[in-house]
Amino acid sequence: MGSIFGKLFKVSTFGESHGRAVGVVIDGLPPGIEISEDYIQKELDRRKPGQSKITTQRGESDKIEILSGVFEGKSTGVPLAMLVWNEDFRSKDYSHIADKFRPSHADYTYHVKYKGIRDYRGGGRSSARETLARVAAGAIAKKMLESEGISFYAYVSQVGELVLNKLYTELDLSLIDSNIVRCPDAEMAQKMIDYIDTIRLQRDTIGGVITGIIKGCPVGLGEPVFDKLHAELGKAMLSINAVKGFSIGSGFEGVKLKGSEHNDVFFVEDNRVRTYTNNSGGVQGGISNGEDIYFKVAFKPVATIMQEQKSIDEHGNEVTISGKGRHDPCVLPRAVPIVEAMAALVIADFWLIYKAYK
Amino acid sequence: MGSIFGKLFKVSTFGESHGRAVGVVIDGLPPGIEISEDYIQKELDRRKPGQSKITTQRGESDKIEILSGVFEGKSTGVPLAMLVWNEDFRSKDYSHIADKFRPSHADYTYHVKYKGIRDYRGGGRSSARETLARVAAGAIAKKMLESEGISFYAYVSQVGELVLNKLYTELDLSLIDSNIVRCPDAEMAQKMIDYIDTIRLQRDTIGGVITGIIKGCPVGLGEPVFDKLHAELGKAMLSINAVKGFSIGSGFEGVKLKGSEHNDVFFVEDNRVRTYTNNSGGVQGGISNGEDIYFKVAFKPVATIMQEQKSIDEHGNEVTISGKGRHDPCVLPRAVPIVEAMAALVIADFWLIYKAYK
Amino acid sequence: MGSIFGKLFKVSTFGESHGRAVGVVIDGLPPGIEISEDYIQKELDRRKPGQSKITTQRGESDKIEILSGVFEGKSTGVPLAMLVWNEDFRSKDYSHIADKFRPSHADYTYHVKYKGIRDYRGGGRSSARETLARVAAGAIAKKMLESEGISFYAYVSQVGELVLNKLYTELDLSLIDSNIVRCPDAEMAQKMIDYIDTIRLQRDTIGGVITGIIKGCPVGLGEPVFDKLHAELGKAMLSINAVKGFSIGSGFEGVKLKGSEHNDVFFVEDNRVRTYTNNSGGVQGGISNGEDIYFKVAFKPVATIMQEQKSIDEHGNEVTISGKGRHDPCVLPRAVPIVEAMAALVIADFWLIYKAYK
Amino acid sequence: MGSIFGKLFKVSTFGESHGRAVGVVIDGLPPGIEISEDYIQKELDRRKPGQSKITTQRGESDKIEILSGVFEGKSTGVPLAMLVWNEDFRSKDYSHIADKFRPSHADYTYHVKYKGIRDYRGGGRSSARETLARVAAGAIAKKMLESEGISFYAYVSQVGELVLNKLYTELDLSLIDSNIVRCPDAEMAQKMIDYIDTIRLQRDTIGGVITGIIKGCPVGLGEPVFDKLHAELGKAMLSINAVKGFSIGSGFEGVKLKGSEHNDVFFVEDNRVRTYTNNSGGVQGGISNGEDIYFKVAFKPVATIMQEQKSIDEHGNEVTISGKGRHDPCVLPRAVPIVEAMAALVIADFWLIYKAYK
Repeated sequence: MGSIFGKLFKVSTFGESHGRAVGVVIDGLPPGIEISEDYIQKELDRRKPGQSKITTQRGESDKIEILSGVFEGKSTGVPLAMLVWNEDFRSKDYSHIADKFRPSHADYTYHVKYKGIRDYRGGGRSSARETLARVAAGAIAKKMLESEGISFYAYVSQVGELVLNKLYTELDLSLIDSNIVRCPDAEMAQKMIDYIDTIRLQRDTIGGVITGIIKGCPVGLGEPVFDKLHAELGKAMLSINAVKGFSIGSGFEGVKLKGSEHNDVFFVEDNRVRTYTNNSGGVQGGISNGEDIYFKVAFKPVATIMQEQKSIDEHGNEVTISGKGRHDPCVLPRAVPIVEAMAALVIADFWLIYKAYK
Repeated sequence: MGSIFGKLFKVSTFGESHGRAVGVVIDGLPPGIEISEDYIQKELDRRKPGQSKITTQRGESDKIEILSGVFEGKSTGVPLAMLVWNEDFRSKDYSHIADKFRPSHADYTYHVKYKGIRDYRGGGRSSARETLARVAAGAIAKKMLESEGISFYAYVSQVGELVLNKLYTELDLSLIDSNIVRCPDAEMAQKMIDYIDTIRLQRDTIGGVITGIIKGCPVGLGEPVFDKLHAELGKAMLSINAVKGFSIGSGFEGVKLKGSEHNDVFFVEDNRVRTYTNNSGGVQGGISNGEDIYFKVAFKPVATIMQEQKSIDEHGNEVTISGKGRHDPCVLPRAVPIVEAMAALVIADFWLIYKAYK
Repeated sequence: MGSIFGKLFKVSTFGESHGRAVGVVIDGLPPGIEISEDYIQKELDRRKPGQSKITTQRGESDKIEILSGVFEGKSTGVPLAMLVWNEDFRSKDYSHIADKFRPSHADYTYHVKYKGIRDYRGGGRSSARETLARVAAGAIAKKMLESEGISFYAYVSQVGELVLNKLYTELDLSLIDSNIVRCPDAEMAQKMIDYIDTIRLQRDTIGGVITGIIKGCPVGLGEPVFDKLHAELGKAMLSINAVKGFSIGSGFEGVKLKGSEHNDVFFVEDNRVRTYTNNSGGVQGGISNGEDIYFKVAFKPVATIMQEQKSIDEHGNEVTISGKGRHDPCVLPRAVPIVEAMAALVIADFWLIYKAYK
Repeated sequence: MGSIFGKLFKVSTFGESHGRAVGVVIDGLPPGIEISEDYIQKELDRRKPGQSKITTQRGESDKIEILSGVFEGKSTGVPLAMLVWNEDFRSKDYSHIADKFRPSHADYTYHVKYKGIRDYRGGGRSSARETLARVAAGAIAKKMLESEGISFYAYVSQVGELVLNKLYTELDLSLIDSNIVRCPDAEMAQKMIDYIDTIRLQRDTIGGVITGIIKGCPVGLGEPVFDKLHAELGKAMLSINAVKGFSIGSGFEGVKLKGSEHNDVFFVEDNRVRTYTNNSGGVQGGISNGEDIYFKVAFKPVATIMQEQKSIDEHGNEVTISGKGRHDPCVLPRAVPIVEAMAALVIADFWLIYKAYK
């Protein structure tokens, strides 16, 4: 249970970190979308390990293969399946971790939930490697929505205590990928990079915040009551590994404001209804109002640290766990395309529902 | 679309603020749960208007009636329908607001989404009156889970800038309903009450934060990948009117920590696996780990203020909107049972799925 | 579980035979559909008891009331709730049947499934009275589809051994309601009426077949693989009480044909692709091809007979059950609007999905 | 849309006849089920082409590969993905059929539904090759249910006019696979084989009926109202290519009976509630009653015949289509494992729901 997302644009992911492959099936994609493996690969490459000194140094080629649903370069409207083979999937030795519960990982909860049967290698299904499938599916969703004028952005706006105190509207979003931390403010980006590097040398990890923006949504996306646009968006973001918080528009800061300060007043500009301010974050009553949708996603520090930690094993014995391998000191830079992908999946689904009632 | 919640424990709400009735159908309730209108009424009374000087002074009796699914005091396992009649539902005059878009309300987005056809009276379907149906359904979910040892708490932990800087573990949760603002710290409660009263006299409104706690969950609730426990919980909370943010465990504060500080180390206590700290908020890998689940919900200030505001009407004309009637200066105290109810709906659904795989 | 139907046009029914009310909530109805209680009532009156000498003589007024989702005569796009109050719902005495399992009823299976807790009065939730909610919802679906040129017909084509050996294309479907058995062939109708009357005098019941026709569907309704149009239609029909079989197009007769006889050859007529024959029943590969959709629904004889029958009670004791009250000797005439309603619900749902991808 | 089946035991198939692979993802499988590729392969081999002279002579090895969800021979509870590579998938020449609509195939409806974009090679997604994925998933479902004492049988009970006039209770079901037509009555089997061979020599095809039986279900599987056990079973069967009809228990024959003849009278045997007759087919009120569930599935003759047929192309021109390649004169023998697989998927889903409420 739990590996399928969406009502019409249904995304079903599969695969463990060290199993044979990680993949995804999209059922509900319209026909006629131009799709190539090269295009999807570009998105995947933004997520892949080994991009820079502040991400894990693991080398994974993560080559996407389309298995179905595309004919002569276009989606056919039937299920689109894609996968990435896991390289050398049998080679590594994880026996030292097989019966231990790593702190703040999913080892223990999976162990109990799945009655002691779990693929412990690299976290198995709970590995962030699963997000590879999300990014591939998100690339398709983005492509579909691109022609409707809807676009997606995300950037790192906080690392540890380093907070970029600028609104997204003050930034040049085309610069996001211009540095390895994916923060469009060059000065802050350098600080973040230096800080992450320090953390890495401490053999530790650090959390942060990603800001996401969706531009170009028509008025009317989202459904009232339970399936509000920002409720589904929140669920999508909270489903990403290591995410502990989500807010839209004024978010947790807006609670300090009075109604007279917070309300977004309407006006008409070029025959279009606008609001002077956008504390609502582009969503009112759960439905897009045509303004930019913007939100924040809080990531805790990565649980895998390169230090010795106390823990227990399956039998309740105290054990020591020592970080091995190559891991991210800060997951944020690589999480940027994941945030964009999840946002695209949410909007793709609402877009189809919107069309159903248009 | 959008008015049905849950996979097995399915809750379907209906009704507008000034229509004939607001109600709910639960499909997927197990048989044998003891249910009485009196029990549900008690929960509804915690939500109802006119409770105190800091809530709206509207008098609504909100009497729950069970229409089906209960026989001789017990649920039968078939759909349980309940409703509350709207009193004097045709009497009030809303013509002054009929074609105007109130700022930061759902008037405009509903108008466009539903092609100009909407019940404008009191916000229609977008009214917070809909949450009455959620509280009624939540009462049933709570009852079902009570016998499994699972309980739900929520309290006001922030109003405007007034922040209760204590962990929930330092508070006596039995005191939540002991004051009208529903904050279990007497001193802070009084400050909040006084502040809300000031805001009320300013004919303004103010936001705040509710902290929620779920105790007694077994290890294993929640599903990996998309349907993580805190992802569904986040969706549920974000679907409540006026909510702009959600966080679990360490939340937005946790991003500042290093992995070595944030990780929750396991130990064994009385043959039970525990963690020394609970930055995870009781959920690891999307699955409950047996510790308390705790979370924060950010509410923006109520959009309806007792002041004149500029806006536009359906034809794009500038208009002035003046707050009429009796409204809440701060929605938080009445939202406490709604947060509990939504938490109960999420856990009820996961509980049934958990049993399916047990 | 099991009382919600549809993916976008979601219909949720509730209520027991002798509970307080039977009702339905539709979530997913587009705005702007003209809806009145009078219009729905007309459909309900075709289903109601006491219409003629060959149906049950119970008098039930079954007055529909709309509770939400309609404003100034039009659907608003939010949940439309309707109900019919059960008259004198506490008055009848069912104690004689309270702990007995009537043969071929749902008494025993409900008793076990719901752990001994069930509303035994008149079959409770398993009563055919639940179909009242389906007919009300179906009326709304029909209305929505009427403006798209899609229309629904059903008639009694077999009662016991009396088979109307004419294709629907040879009949005048406007005559369906011209007689009390709802068979558009006057001669056969009279035979059926006489036969049912004989059965009634024997204090017995008899089964039969209803033929359904859907006209005006565009090419493209239905989804491939699992959600084929005729698969969902079959599910919808088989969900009606007493239905034991469903077939589309050539159905069980078509199995005797060779491919060269059965294949429907395409041709072009007035710029429209047609088939010379329609053994496919208007559906190919699970998707409507623009031809009439026609199907058969087999109803077993009503289980309640006015004779003594042996059975057992909840404790395993042998008991005698004697038919009491006023029951239908043949359910077919009253089932005609139910078949139409369920067909309309299926097509309404596919229609919205079709629009989502158009 | 339409390629996902099930509520808890969710099966998502993908792949076209001549694409790269056909596969399936199961989300919702419990952990701990013993699974091997060999076991699944055995079921696939019952479906594969080239088994005998009365099936297509195409040679396909159809080797199943498990990609995820199985660890050390057991299901882990996370998505189980499997696929079969299509051999020589680029080699065949289908250009002669690329723009033509084969009679009674899905070519035309797919063409319109998917806006002219379709993989025409061998029917693409509408090919019966998709059922390979169903059989693989069904094998897993069978395995899960085997340990609960639930078993599945299907056999050919009619080919053209040749009807096996024996109840399943009079047959030795262990003989089903003892002959190439999969009819457990040796004498009738031989007649069917001879007849199909005659049809093959006529370069034609023939339809037939498969009878299915489910043994060992506990009382209580299935949900009332819309999701009745036989309604979902009917949907599942009608979703198989070429199926035009479904009936349960007395089916279309039962309509001729009177209630006094049709009712299944209860009695107690060995402390278990039984019925003397089983016209209900093991389902009452949509819920299993503990008796055998039996049903019939009607298959039309295969549309692909080895004869010239008139048709049209995408531009509306009249064309002639000539059957090429190696096709089944009668699909029934190879459809037997598909019927069993779909029955297993339905029961697996209901079984998990049943456990949720137990």
